[in-house]
Amino acid sequence: MSTYGDKIRLTVFGESHGAGIGCVLENVTSGFEIDTDKILLQMARRAPGKDKTATPRLEKDFPIIKSGILDGVTTGAPIACFIENTNTRSGDYSNILDKPRPGHADYTAYVKYNGKNDIRGGGHFSGRLTAPIVFAGAVVRQILEQKGIKIAAHIASIGNVEDERFNPVNVPDELIEKLSSESFALIDETKEDAMRGEVEKARLDLDSIGGTVECVIKGMPVGVGGPLFDGIEGRISSAVFGIPAVKGIEFGAGFESSKLRGSENNDSFAFENGKVITTTNNCGGILGGISDGMPIVFRAAFKPTPSIAREQNTVNLGSGENTTLSVKGRHDPCIVPRAVSVVEAAAALAVFDMVI
Amino acid sequence: MSTYGDKIRLTVFGESHGAGIGCVLENVTSGFEIDTDKILLQMARRAPGKDKTATPRLEKDFPIIKSGILDGVTTGAPIACFIENTNTRSGDYSNILDKPRPGHADYTAYVKYNGKNDIRGGGHFSGRLTAPIVFAGAVVRQILEQKGIKIAAHIASIGNVEDERFNPVNVPDELIEKLSSESFALIDETKEDAMRGEVEKARLDLDSIGGTVECVIKGMPVGVGGPLFDGIEGRISSAVFGIPAVKGIEFGAGFESSKLRGSENNDSFAFENGKVITTTNNCGGILGGISDGMPIVFRAAFKPTPSIAREQNTVNLGSGENTTLSVKGRHDPCIVPRAVSVVEAAAALAVFDMVI
Amino acid sequence: MSTYGDKIRLTVFGESHGAGIGCVLENVTSGFEIDTDKILLQMARRAPGKDKTATPRLEKDFPIIKSGILDGVTTGAPIACFIENTNTRSGDYSNILDKPRPGHADYTAYVKYNGKNDIRGGGHFSGRLTAPIVFAGAVVRQILEQKGIKIAAHIASIGNVEDERFNPVNVPDELIEKLSSESFALIDETKEDAMRGEVEKARLDLDSIGGTVECVIKGMPVGVGGPLFDGIEGRISSAVFGIPAVKGIEFGAGFESSKLRGSENNDSFAFENGKVITTTNNCGGILGGISDGMPIVFRAAFKPTPSIAREQNTVNLGSGENTTLSVKGRHDPCIVPRAVSVVEAAAALAVFDMVI
Amino acid sequence: MSTYGDKIRLTVFGESHGAGIGCVLENVTSGFEIDTDKILLQMARRAPGKDKTATPRLEKDFPIIKSGILDGVTTGAPIACFIENTNTRSGDYSNILDKPRPGHADYTAYVKYNGKNDIRGGGHFSGRLTAPIVFAGAVVRQILEQKGIKIAAHIASIGNVEDERFNPVNVPDELIEKLSSESFALIDETKEDAMRGEVEKARLDLDSIGGTVECVIKGMPVGVGGPLFDGIEGRISSAVFGIPAVKGIEFGAGFESSKLRGSENNDSFAFENGKVITTTNNCGGILGGISDGMPIVFRAAFKPTPSIAREQNTVNLGSGENTTLSVKGRHDPCIVPRAVSVVEAAAALAVFDMVI
Repeated sequence: MSTYGDKIRLTVFGESHGAGIGCVLENVTSGFEIDTDKILLQMARRAPGKDKTATPRLEKDFPIIKSGILDGVTTGAPIACFIENTNTRSGDYSNILDKPRPGHADYTAYVKYNGKNDIRGGGHFSGRLTAPIVFAGAVVRQILEQKGIKIAAHIASIGNVEDERFNPVNVPDELIEKLSSESFALIDETKEDAMRGEVEKARLDLDSIGGTVECVIKGMPVGVGGPLFDGIEGRISSAVFGIPAVKGIEFGAGFESSKLRGSENNDSFAFENGKVITTTNNCGGILGGISDGMPIVFRAAFKPTPSIAREQNTVNLGSGENTTLSVKGRHDPCIVPRAVSVVEAAAALAVFDMVI
Repeated sequence: MSTYGDKIRLTVFGESHGAGIGCVLENVTSGFEIDTDKILLQMARRAPGKDKTATPRLEKDFPIIKSGILDGVTTGAPIACFIENTNTRSGDYSNILDKPRPGHADYTAYVKYNGKNDIRGGGHFSGRLTAPIVFAGAVVRQILEQKGIKIAAHIASIGNVEDERFNPVNVPDELIEKLSSESFALIDETKEDAMRGEVEKARLDLDSIGGTVECVIKGMPVGVGGPLFDGIEGRISSAVFGIPAVKGIEFGAGFESSKLRGSENNDSFAFENGKVITTTNNCGGILGGISDGMPIVFRAAFKPTPSIAREQNTVNLGSGENTTLSVKGRHDPCIVPRAVSVVEAAAALAVFDMVI
Repeated sequence: MSTYGDKIRLTVFGESHGAGIGCVLENVTSGFEIDTDKILLQMARRAPGKDKTATPRLEKDFPIIKSGILDGVTTGAPIACFIENTNTRSGDYSNILDKPRPGHADYTAYVKYNGKNDIRGGGHFSGRLTAPIVFAGAVVRQILEQKGIKIAAHIASIGNVEDERFNPVNVPDELIEKLSSESFALIDETKEDAMRGEVEKARLDLDSIGGTVECVIKGMPVGVGGPLFDGIEGRISSAVFGIPAVKGIEFGAGFESSKLRGSENNDSFAFENGKVITTTNNCGGILGGISDGMPIVFRAAFKPTPSIAREQNTVNLGSGENTTLSVKGRHDPCIVPRAVSVVEAAAALAVFDMVI
Repeated sequence: MSTYGDKIRLTVFGESHGAGIGCVLENVTSGFEIDTDKILLQMARRAPGKDKTATPRLEKDFPIIKSGILDGVTTGAPIACFIENTNTRSGDYSNILDKPRPGHADYTAYVKYNGKNDIRGGGHFSGRLTAPIVFAGAVVRQILEQKGIKIAAHIASIGNVEDERFNPVNVPDELIEKLSSESFALIDETKEDAMRGEVEKARLDLDSIGGTVECVIKGMPVGVGGPLFDGIEGRISSAVFGIPAVKGIEFGAGFESSKLRGSENNDSFAFENGKVITTTNNCGGILGGISDGMPIVFRAAFKPTPSIAREQNTVNLGSGENTTLSVKGRHDPCIVPRAVSVVEAAAALAVFDMVI
């Protein structure tokens, strides 16, 4: 189901070119003052058209709160949010039913739903469905901040151009502040030109390009999470794999740790100002599925967006013949800059679900 | 909770040095004949002491079925399995409470459980808890096989020594058959010596070494899974991150796809013998969270086992001072060969949960 | 959480006097043609103002489908429904915060939500929240009907005036048809006058009156449900107790069976036209938590609506003193006739959750 | 599934005449000292053979704790309990497969499990499965007691003989203490003879007799529970309907309230010693699904146990003919006295699930 959470529950609904999209977020504690500007900021970071790398199709994502927030304060009742669709052009997608687009859910959804799903603009599979996730994340991260838990992410790479990584034992508050409000979030801002260059090259080639997003959760109390299927890694990955296009996730040293010796990978404990810390943080702040008080760090891999104008090989499901297809329209050649806010939102929802 | 599943439910219990460990597996259809030898084979693949790379501490893992299977046939009632602990030496672990072992859950569990958790041998956090997971996986994969779904994994790497990868568009049945019954499962068997050499070097250095496991699920029907939080990636990763020491997971081209162009990463559709296939399989058999009928392929990264005899820096929680520790006893320097069967089991449970 | 279901998931949101109310219904199979008129009929049965016994406050409940249904056919994506509130008079309720109304959730919600819940018109606790439940029930019962499962309920009693009960071994289809479309559903229509008389007397006394609703589910396949916590009784009661004002539920002979001997209460099996039936149906179609193929019959007890214009004793939470209160406005003296459609909807949701 | 709980999770396994029965109870906080004698007392209250009204078949129910409790203290890991079956006579039940016993799950389970379920002694449907529920309840009620929440039940009726009811606004601690440790729990002990007479008459008639159990939960904090499907009534009823033979449940005035006027049924608020109370308690301590701080009171209806030695009509599923059957062996003519402890346990589990 299109639902996330254990103690909270986020339900996401809507289709790209239907009446609208939205979500219901349950079990948010009553009495928290929600700053609407902070919600709009996060939604703007995700929305296309804010940045020159993004799709020219302008979406206006105004979240209309239908319940659960009264006079700016959470009531404890489910928070329902609705975002109207303004773009309902259906014509561009008329041949999808017959010719599934490579890399998209067209074929698999066709089989799962017996051809009855809404195919316009990807329907319920559209990346547009991340807007309600960002909304919900923007609500809960405000409550997390009151608990001293801060979340930020950045573009760790686009194609082969890499940003610096977080120093996992020391993530300054100012960096978190800065990254979590930017639309092209980088630790090393000098990489922006090279990254934009990669995207621009892909665009000129009628192509797209993938990337990775690195996320940090700072201020997590020690002792959250649990063994086996209750571990933080599983909880966060369930949320993050809910974002379309994510194909991998790693915590701390992640895949790199598979090449290391125990003596290299183990993080030594030490007292610092009377508090237990680890002097390195290869475990990404998680030991035995439980937070150790250090920053939680993970990276998510985004495949290149499958919508490309180039001709591709596909099948005609109607005629049963092989054929070709080029996806019309103008496409966003790289969703990674916009995905930063979505990863932060997913992380916020996972953390909130564990700490409330 | 130590529970996995949505339609099924697997509950794992026990502590490493308590009376025993076990599991309850609910919602397995009635009337399936279960081959006990196949269960024992899988449990033997996981058990230490079967292979010369493994820990010399010999564990006898006899799963005693307490309910749910009568005369070798599932009854539809919960399947309960109990494995007695024969090793209950507690002496080796006496100083853990004061000095948490780096890389272990000692410190985080101490905080979470207020120092009341069973610390002997890692307690509920012990890798030994994967034995019931393998048991449960060995039950459900037999039912999956009757549905034409086969699962196998192999040691994709130990340290820097890599095995071949699966050809994701063509995984022969014989390969699956072979890998899923071996205790040192490799596609390219010539890599065995180099891998064992890595492990032996680590052992001689009183150290340990990590690795990766690659897993394939063949025969998955098209149309299983769902959008957003219901995607196959999230469902499998929830199961796989339930295995202690897993720090990363990637599907199909995974992190590599983040460096690719859309035109490189998209998998073209084609008809082959009247059936829709993809000519490449960078998506790992999953589009929009839903199976496309091609093999599902994923890789999991295992950190090096944190138990090493070398001296390491840690803290004394009692005295509040920094100190050192070397974990006594003989340790398994590389759990990756044994982890192969656990990854297969986790994949089997995730798949079973989606297809029943 | 305001959520029901295991295989499906119904999420209900909204406050009585906020922007609106609604629901999201997940996991409805794709490809079912939904008859909007049947939805509107059920919602009209629940809506006040349709019947002269009901509240004069006219509510217009137009369910606006935001997603999940395209051209009248389910798409498989979450079905989101929104109902705008037209009545947002808040003035009448200004003194609730200080003086909790007896029998209402004012006091308990005040404590649970730290006084931050939306108190206008009962907020999220309003009986108005049953409208989305009826909507969702009206969707799934159409799919159930295609599977041969039909549901109907009737006013079993108002005060001391009782309708006939269902003959639990033989519920004619025509009766189900008739009851499930009426706004004052009775098996024995001659009881209508007496029942309306009870309601009218209560109204004239500035009072209200309770009642019971009896519901039948016909055509349930044999073998649905399960032992212990998976039994049909528990699944249906979870849904039915989700309806505000329900304080009791009984299946088959229910509380009466507690007075019987086993020889009286046991339902004999017999073959009828080659099919196994029971010659009586004291078990209400459920044995060991599992359906036996006979009609499932249950009764729900509704307390009298707590909104009455009479003066009642209460407390002033602000001043800490005992005080009195009379609930202003015109009240529906008996919600039971309208509750019939809500009980049917709850039953439909519970059954759908078990059979899909 | 045979599972209960939201924050906790209780999984019950086993068959009446298999190797044994048991349960796993997850998410019990660490560090609670568990008094084994209190567990054994509760299990003895449930076990047959303790009281002369009970079945002569002597069961020895020794709960063996396999994990989760170390040196008498909860560790935070899942608590696993196993109870060996000593009675494995299978011969008595040989004809059940062909001739389903009226009132039992034989027929419905036969259909659900395709005839593959363990039919010996009722298998997983046996009342014996309530033993692990009592075990789990006996664990959590000790933790509840430390929070000031006490639970007791009594035999409210057997056949037509009724005990007094709780005074719902004032349940003395001594009464709770007394009832919750008795094997034939009555408020008015003078009713014991008449009740035992009813049972004896049923026994002499080769018959059985039903009854009701009334349960009180005292000390519940105000503000627990929630609206709609999160209400206390639904949560408790899910647990109580998990007990075999329960066919009805009512809270507070329950079905009686359906005959009342609002002015009679509403419970007035008043201050008493600076605390808000209600002067009556028809709502059973629950308003809007949320606790109001008054005792929570509910009654559960038990049908007469279906095992009777009298000849009954049934079918021969093999031959397709109507036939007769008398259930051999000696039967417990009334399970209600023993059911008292099971109802208390179910209530304790439901409450624990809500307050932790």
